[in-house]
Amino acid sequence: MSFVPVSVNSHFPLQNLPYGVFSTASDPTPRLGVAIGDEILSLKEVQHLFNGPILSNAQGVFAEKNLNKFMSMGKDAWKEARSSLQHMLSANNHILKDDHGLRGRAFVKQADAIMHLPADIGDYTDFYSSIHHATNVGTMFRGKENALMPNWKHIPVGYHGRASSVVISRTPIRRPCGQTKPADDKPPVYGPCRLLDFELEMGFFVGPGNKLGDRISVDQAENHIFGMVLVNDWSARDIQKWEYVPLGPFLGKNFGTSISPWVVTMDALKPFVTSNMKRDVEILPYLKHDDDYNFDINLSVSVQGENMVEPAVVCESNFKHMYWTMKQQLAHHTVNGCNAKPGDLYGSGTISGEEQKSFGSMLELCWKGTREVNLGNGNVRKFLKDGDNVILSGYCQGNSFRVGFGTCEGKVLPANI
Amino acid sequence: MSFVPVSVNSHFPLQNLPYGVFSTASDPTPRLGVAIGDEILSLKEVQHLFNGPILSNAQGVFAEKNLNKFMSMGKDAWKEARSSLQHMLSANNHILKDDHGLRGRAFVKQADAIMHLPADIGDYTDFYSSIHHATNVGTMFRGKENALMPNWKHIPVGYHGRASSVVISRTPIRRPCGQTKPADDKPPVYGPCRLLDFELEMGFFVGPGNKLGDRISVDQAENHIFGMVLVNDWSARDIQKWEYVPLGPFLGKNFGTSISPWVVTMDALKPFVTSNMKRDVEILPYLKHDDDYNFDINLSVSVQGENMVEPAVVCESNFKHMYWTMKQQLAHHTVNGCNAKPGDLYGSGTISGEEQKSFGSMLELCWKGTREVNLGNGNVRKFLKDGDNVILSGYCQGNSFRVGFGTCEGKVLPANI
Ligand SMILES: [Ca+2]
Ligand SMILES: [Ca+2]
Ligand SMILES: [Mg+2]
Ligand SMILES: [Mg+2]
Ligand code: NI
Repeated sequence: MSFVPVSVNSHFPLQNLPYGVFSTASDPTPRLGVAIGDEILSLKEVQHLFNGPILSNAQGVFAEKNLNKFMSMGKDAWKEARSSLQHMLSANNHILKDDHGLRGRAFVKQADAIMHLPADIGDYTDFYSSIHHATNVGTMFRGKENALMPNWKHIPVGYHGRASSVVISRTPIRRPCGQTKPADDKPPVYGPCRLLDFELEMGFFVGPGNKLGDRISVDQAENHIFGMVLVNDWSARDIQKWEYVPLGPFLGKNFGTSISPWVVTMDALKPFVTSNMKRDVEILPYLKHDDDYNFDINLSVSVQGENMVEPAVVCESNFKHMYWTMKQQLAHHTVNGCNAKPGDLYGSGTISGEEQKSFGSMLELCWKGTREVNLGNGNVRKFLKDGDNVILSGYCQGNSFRVGFGTCEGKVLPANI
Repeated sequence: MSFVPVSVNSHFPLQNLPYGVFSTASDPTPRLGVAIGDEILSLKEVQHLFNGPILSNAQGVFAEKNLNKFMSMGKDAWKEARSSLQHMLSANNHILKDDHGLRGRAFVKQADAIMHLPADIGDYTDFYSSIHHATNVGTMFRGKENALMPNWKHIPVGYHGRASSVVISRTPIRRPCGQTKPADDKPPVYGPCRLLDFELEMGFFVGPGNKLGDRISVDQAENHIFGMVLVNDWSARDIQKWEYVPLGPFLGKNFGTSISPWVVTMDALKPFVTSNMKRDVEILPYLKHDDDYNFDINLSVSVQGENMVEPAVVCESNFKHMYWTMKQQLAHHTVNGCNAKPGDLYGSGTISGEEQKSFGSMLELCWKGTREVNLGNGNVRKFLKDGDNVILSGYCQGNSFRVGFGTCEGKVLPANI
């Protein structure tokens, strides 16, 4: 237990200790922090307390302005940091608890903090690894018989996203303008996106990378995965539809991707490992691993329209619906020698479950516009309206504690015509 | 004329003055330079000579380790720098020419320099803007009737590439391994790429960017384009073929993209503006501009196998075969509010002309493996072999001078099994 109060439903108990980057009105310099209860522990203030064999010689990593350097240090450093943090925050330990001067400097209320991107993201890749999502989208556009492409069960299919437009939770997202083709027999038109959507995803940050020409094997991949965040891959379905053949999603995606501010480490998630999804198709050896590396993470999406007094839950899903594991994604991404770097972000793809209420996008929830999604009190949606606030949330349920991700939020601003 | 000797076929006369980043064995710190004849002018050594109204207050930009900051300053700063450089390098000017101490420090032979990436590339996008290339590829895979996709003449089609694997000329490229499907009725296999290819492209670097949610209009785009380089978008055709539906090229591309080290500014290229390509399809207003923004740049590709005494030219093309201009590419890329940043790289797509000898990839030159490309002395190729050095070159021909790009080279290393 920590000397910092942590309520039973808090996402940030001593078992979690996620990393983020924050600033305050009084000190606008972005700096590293760890979430505990409703507080943030400012790491540069306690850097001298990291006195294990690795970090005692590298305390400056906690005075950096983003997590890239810490991510690059690898799992032994991560484990040592976690152990030092659990020690300094524990109710039995006096070194921080009873140093009232230090304690005053080292803690900031989350409510008073401005959050920033946790890392300088060099490259962002988005996978497509939920079988229910891929099947749903395939069924809508190609029919049930041809729902999954022939490569889908052999390859963790993915594409390169836009790194520059990855933004931190609560950054408003402007409805994009662009080219669409509403009528098959008429030329394309220009205007605001009419089919704006969210995609419920998660993503992982890479720690140590690989040199160009080398690869990260599926057995080594775990050592390169630092931690996870919630990801909302905002999508403009009408722009996407007209542009994406043959080179894939582009302007239908790159106007914004929101992530939650707290990076939950794989060490904190380890107790929530669950079985990998069963496969009916043999995969190539470079993608095979025997151990479970799937995670039981409860996920939800809520939407709050401008006239609504509270958000309405539109989706309840779970990260365990992933067909491909993060280890397989990273092994595949680097099997050709493509170089990963510390701070790279790898999105899961939309995480849909089997049932309708677990579908992770409005496209699936409204089934391509054929049904309305009920938000209560007469509010319905097919796609997102201006002013809608979209709130992703996620947590693992332990025995009377939660290891959570907080929320990933974003409000839709009207298009700039 | 410069006091530095410049031969008539040199790519780097006083009319060019391209920017790059170099180091030397004796001083391994990357620093900015300008190519002149066979020499490099080290900008940090002459930063005090930039004494125009903008740069006299920002001379430190020339002591940076990459061009991002200079790129971000915009066209007035670029023009002022060009004017100062032409002044200090001119044969009539004594300030540098006759200061033997400074001159000794400020010049490094290109032959003694190690070149580095000119910018920290935040995002790399690759377009598909040559109509002959798109038609060739479409004809091969879908037949002549359906060669161009319905969106091709309405949208500068493009996709996000991988920024981490953009490398400087002369970086060896390892043949990628990956998943391919050689037989339709058999499962995919793993192994080294069998259909390794180059793509003859050019790319432009963005100067000042735009904020997320804003856009760069086609009329303003010119002010955001800093300069150009040669680009070789190495491609693994067999990997690409199996993976690319529906989300586009991924591991078939991201194992390496080579660029030439010298960024030729748009001011240096301005005398070589030529007519935009004629269109037979009306485009949307956000993509229209009346002025010519196409460039007459002679391009060639040579291949030298390990047993060959000299490279053999396999392709002679020209940048003027672009259907979409760089202004249209940038306006399209940002029309949805996607944010560009200083140092972003935007590739043209493979630049093929109408004639067979102007096709910009082995895929087209060997027409999908149906004919052999002759390299002389009994050497033939369909796709690239291990040990092949691929050399892109490009220049604009002036009246007894050339504004050139030097070369973009890369040698194929055998796969790491
Ligand atoms: Ca997605
Ligand atoms: Ca290309
Ligand atoms: Mg997005
Ligand atoms: Mg490439
Ligand atoms: Ni005490």
